[in-house]
Amino acid sequence: MELQFLGTGAGMPSKIRNTTSIILNLSAEEHGYWMFDCGEATQHQMLHTTLKPRKVSKLFVTHLHGDHLFGIPGFIGSRSFLGGDSPLDIYGPVGIEEWILTTLRITKTHLTYKLRIHEIEEGIVFEDDEFIITARLLSHVIPSFGFRIVQKPLPGKLLIEKAIAAGVPKGPILQRLKNGEDIVLEDGRIITSTSVIGEPKQGFILTILGDTSSCDASVQLSQNADLVVHEATFDNETGQLASDFGHSTIQQAAEIVKEAGAKALVATHISSRFLPSDIEAFRKEGEAVLPKVFVAHDFAQYKLVNGEVVESSFKK
Amino acid sequence: MELQFLGTGAGMPSKIRNTTSIILNLSAEEHGYWMFDCGEATQHQMLHTTLKPRKVSKLFVTHLHGDHLFGIPGFIGSRSFLGGDSPLDIYGPVGIEEWILTTLRITKTHLTYKLRIHEIEEGIVFEDDEFIITARLLSHVIPSFGFRIVQKPLPGKLLIEKAIAAGVPKGPILQRLKNGEDIVLEDGRIITSTSVIGEPKQGFILTILGDTSSCDASVQLSQNADLVVHEATFDNETGQLASDFGHSTIQQAAEIVKEAGAKALVATHISSRFLPSDIEAFRKEGEAVLPKVFVAHDFAQYKLVNGEVVESSFKK
Repeated sequence: MELQFLGTGAGMPSKIRNTTSIILNLSAEEHGYWMFDCGEATQHQMLHTTLKPRKVSKLFVTHLHGDHLFGIPGFIGSRSFLGGDSPLDIYGPVGIEEWILTTLRITKTHLTYKLRIHEIEEGIVFEDDEFIITARLLSHVIPSFGFRIVQKPLPGKLLIEKAIAAGVPKGPILQRLKNGEDIVLEDGRIITSTSVIGEPKQGFILTILGDTSSCDASVQLSQNADLVVHEATFDNETGQLASDFGHSTIQQAAEIVKEAGAKALVATHISSRFLPSDIEAFRKEGEAVLPKVFVAHDFAQYKLVNGEVVESSFKK
Repeated sequence: MELQFLGTGAGMPSKIRNTTSIILNLSAEEHGYWMFDCGEATQHQMLHTTLKPRKVSKLFVTHLHGDHLFGIPGFIGSRSFLGGDSPLDIYGPVGIEEWILTTLRITKTHLTYKLRIHEIEEGIVFEDDEFIITARLLSHVIPSFGFRIVQKPLPGKLLIEKAIAAGVPKGPILQRLKNGEDIVLEDGRIITSTSVIGEPKQGFILTILGDTSSCDASVQLSQNADLVVHEATFDNETGQLASDFGHSTIQQAAEIVKEAGAKALVATHISSRFLPSDIEAFRKEGEAVLPKVFVAHDFAQYKLVNGEVVESSFKK
């Protein structure tokens, strides 16, 4: 998995940061991309990356403020125009369906693919063999969700050399063992699947939170996560504004991650008052609380290497 | 007056052209800016200019396709956030009001200024002492308007030296003559206002058309215009696509302008299939019909100098 930030600003676009959007790239896991929020000009930002709109299979909308969703109509239209034919699932708060359907109707936008809109409540919003996604309401001026994305334990790999040493012939029997089947060799010996399959591998835990002030739900969603994406609109000096408008400082974000026993914070939704030259001091206010703090910028990429978050930035 | 193009592409944004938006800068006429169409990321484009959202007093929407209006929600929200407090009038086809009001309601967007939405029909859509704007329906796959913006004749200037030579004393009497009042001098002579006021000056005629194939309404709206903004999505080679989708080639656009006896064509809404290196050959297809043909690019500016269109491009 890899996270790529397409927009890391708050409220309005600036020359430096676009409004919010994050791509969770699950190509390695054969799930395509999952998008979290889609501020205006998200499709424009994608033009400067290798990401393809048609590969986005899910869009999770944290809340209904414009800087998190005004890019949806253009994005879903262009996804169609660019040949997208696989379904797109959109998950978001009550109201998202009326807005999108009204927009499509009035602008006579016809999509070439199936659009499925899911208005969500707290709880499990998606589950398949590999992932389970839980949503909780955070603390903001309007309902704002956070998401905990848990990758289920990955089955261990087939230990081919061990199987062959035990007398298993190469060929389809190896696949049956890999699928969990016990087999009987020609000489009558039984080879159990578990004896030639390695340990299951722990999946990742990723938490992506919408706009919020500090709250218990954030801590719960972030429990033992490998990476928490938390908003940090303000710094300590402007902390009163965070309280007034349902946002957080970077130190408050770091405290949430620390309390949850999670490994790393990637801060986003940064006020345009902070210039590039301010960001290291800003980051350090988080680092005063938590060892591993990153401040995202547009096009920044993060991945897990041996369970550790690593930034591999892309500059356009 | 000055026209500035914020987006000159068709259908979708590309790295080179954003979706449609044009600013008619009437600062010199003390009318602020009037915007024509507002594709997604129009507010982003403005960040690269000296234009201020709060100075936009009117927005005319040609038609309800997304590439002409998906920037409205972000633009009107940011106009508020950036301190806009003067009213904004939006003129557009039936449906524009439902879409904007639904968007504001669902995203809990509260504006600091009065928003007035006018759903228009063919005819005069705006008139004041200085301007009259007429709309006509063009020929597209959905209702699409063109606008003729006529500046009324400007009153002649007070010929101060002539008035003083006639014995008019400096001071408030000059202002009365300028205001059209005839006055009596102390020696009993009558000085008529018309005798010391120059000839009225012809105003400009500007035509801005929405997406359309060739049609009579375009010719009528463009009659004797100083400048016609006409879409030119395709070239001669791709002319069949123009017919199929209710668009025009640049040569067809030039023919409309010629037939209307207008002075100059500024072509916009250019398909992304045309690369910068193609544009001069593209422009020449229009020039085969009409002497004065410009192909707009994002941030291009045009003004009238002694009644002639002059390009004064701005590159970001």
